[in-house]
Amino acid sequence: MFIDKLIDNIIEKNNPSVIGLDPRIEYVPSLIREESYKEFGRNSKGAAEAIWVFNKRIIDAVYDIAPAVKLQVACYEMYGVEGMEVLSRTIKYAREKGLIVIADGKRNDIGSTAQAYSTAFLGSIDLGEGPIDKAFDVDALTVNPYLGYDGIKPFIDDCRDNNKGIFVLVKTSNKSSGQLQDLLMQDGRSVYEVVAGYVEKWGNNLIGKYGYSSVGAVVGATYPNQAKVLRSILKSTYILVPGYGAQGGTARDAAHSFDKNGMGAIVNASRSIMCAYQSDLWKNEYNEDRFDEASRAEALRMRDELNAALQSKKSS
Amino acid sequence: MFIDKLIDNIIEKNNPSVIGLDPRIEYVPSLIREESYKEFGRNSKGAAEAIWVFNKRIIDAVYDIAPAVKLQVACYEMYGVEGMEVLSRTIKYAREKGLIVIADGKRNDIGSTAQAYSTAFLGSIDLGEGPIDKAFDVDALTVNPYLGYDGIKPFIDDCRDNNKGIFVLVKTSNKSSGQLQDLLMQDGRSVYEVVAGYVEKWGNNLIGKYGYSSVGAVVGATYPNQAKVLRSILKSTYILVPGYGAQGGTARDAAHSFDKNGMGAIVNASRSIMCAYQSDLWKNEYNEDRFDEASRAEALRMRDELNAALQSKKSS
Repeated sequence: MFIDKLIDNIIEKNNPSVIGLDPRIEYVPSLIREESYKEFGRNSKGAAEAIWVFNKRIIDAVYDIAPAVKLQVACYEMYGVEGMEVLSRTIKYAREKGLIVIADGKRNDIGSTAQAYSTAFLGSIDLGEGPIDKAFDVDALTVNPYLGYDGIKPFIDDCRDNNKGIFVLVKTSNKSSGQLQDLLMQDGRSVYEVVAGYVEKWGNNLIGKYGYSSVGAVVGATYPNQAKVLRSILKSTYILVPGYGAQGGTARDAAHSFDKNGMGAIVNASRSIMCAYQSDLWKNEYNEDRFDEASRAEALRMRDELNAALQSKKSS
Repeated sequence: MFIDKLIDNIIEKNNPSVIGLDPRIEYVPSLIREESYKEFGRNSKGAAEAIWVFNKRIIDAVYDIAPAVKLQVACYEMYGVEGMEVLSRTIKYAREKGLIVIADGKRNDIGSTAQAYSTAFLGSIDLGEGPIDKAFDVDALTVNPYLGYDGIKPFIDDCRDNNKGIFVLVKTSNKSSGQLQDLLMQDGRSVYEVVAGYVEKWGNNLIGKYGYSSVGAVVGATYPNQAKVLRSILKSTYILVPGYGAQGGTARDAAHSFDKNGMGAIVNASRSIMCAYQSDLWKNEYNEDRFDEASRAEALRMRDELNAALQSKKSS
């Protein structure tokens, strides 16, 4: 079961964080970029291959300390077919290294089409003689709830059949998230609370040994007060927390999405880890050539900071 | 400007419909499938290449009578990198044939990431020396509004800078769409009405010569009563109408999304056109080998049915 595997990994590594591989070409050290452009051209292929080298070194630097990586699909899709090829290669490599891989695709559509997206990320194609190729074979996918249950059900069925997971957007980390998500219903609840209620129900049949389900939720670290409310609605729902670090969410903010035992959530950081070598904190210690060591150092710092915040939450 | 080009095409062809190329491998005639499997293998590549042959023949059969095609990205993504390559090839081919191409991707994310999706479909990558490669170079993209304005703005900026368009999900055609979209606010409006209000505002600066903007909306033909309300909110917003045909929406239902001059909307049909050769209506006239002629016949029938419904709406 996806959720049990995720929690086992979190416990084993004593680390409730996800490394976000949302690469931008400008994050990649210039030497790697220029070498790739020389070999493949200053084009989509050259950019995508530079990102692959960058990703691989970060994965090599963190796989023993992090339970999971999150790949932002948009960052690969912008490089077209070449980018999607590097997405696929990164997924395979990270899974070989024992990491749980979450594709952050926020996919959504009506039922029959949602099935196609689910096949792309959580299933296999079948050309009449049983399941064969997997397109982008991840452990879990983020999905958008705007279309309601029949657009989510195909993903949930694949979670059940293939031991996969989803994280449904509930309260996102961006500034405008409230425009729709905070609208107040006649019964006093907000849209995000209603969605949280749905998500909790949708996961009912996929609850694992820790009491959490393979149908998770996304709740941004940038909205700590909303996270408190949501933690109480999402009793058996694991929460993926974006917005920590570069987006402004702190470890203390993120802690609101955890339960009283320090479980129940996993916090993502992307830019702060990928660009650690450029940060005030690490740039004196690590130069561009050692960007991967800076990422590891920042990943360890984040782990310890989160664990400290959870410890102080427990004792308060 | 995207919207003017779209409306020019609709007027020129006297046809307010979009051909949906949302191919499933089981839609492709068996001979084409088997030939492709023989040449490329019974795998993702074989399936994707069969879909390419299928798409190309449908495009050849309809490009002179239809203003636009809509490509459902999920149907390509499920075949992985090979599928995305065929998506890219189909986009190029349809545009060469003078068709407006809409990618139905329902993409959405926080601002910085929405920019990456927008670059993928509506922009160009830039590796420091000006814009170069385009990943999936379409005329317009469908997007999901759950994250609010800052997740939509990057797309709108590319609409302005690159003469592109978007269609924002407002009221989708599926059965569960009401679970979130029909929720009632304290002021009595539903979520889909609130979203419609946003969309109308977001398009303010991109209004073309016909009084419509390049920021469009998606409103399903399966909800004719809601469409009536939405038509009055979406004064300068073009409506993309899915749900006609196989999903149960009729021409009369779709007509509610049009204005009193018979403009303001474009109606998509996918399965009923792609699988026309299998339908009760056409299967006696066209065998599998002539599937493309059946698609053309159905596209013409749909055009005439829509125009008749618009005529009767005008005179009523």
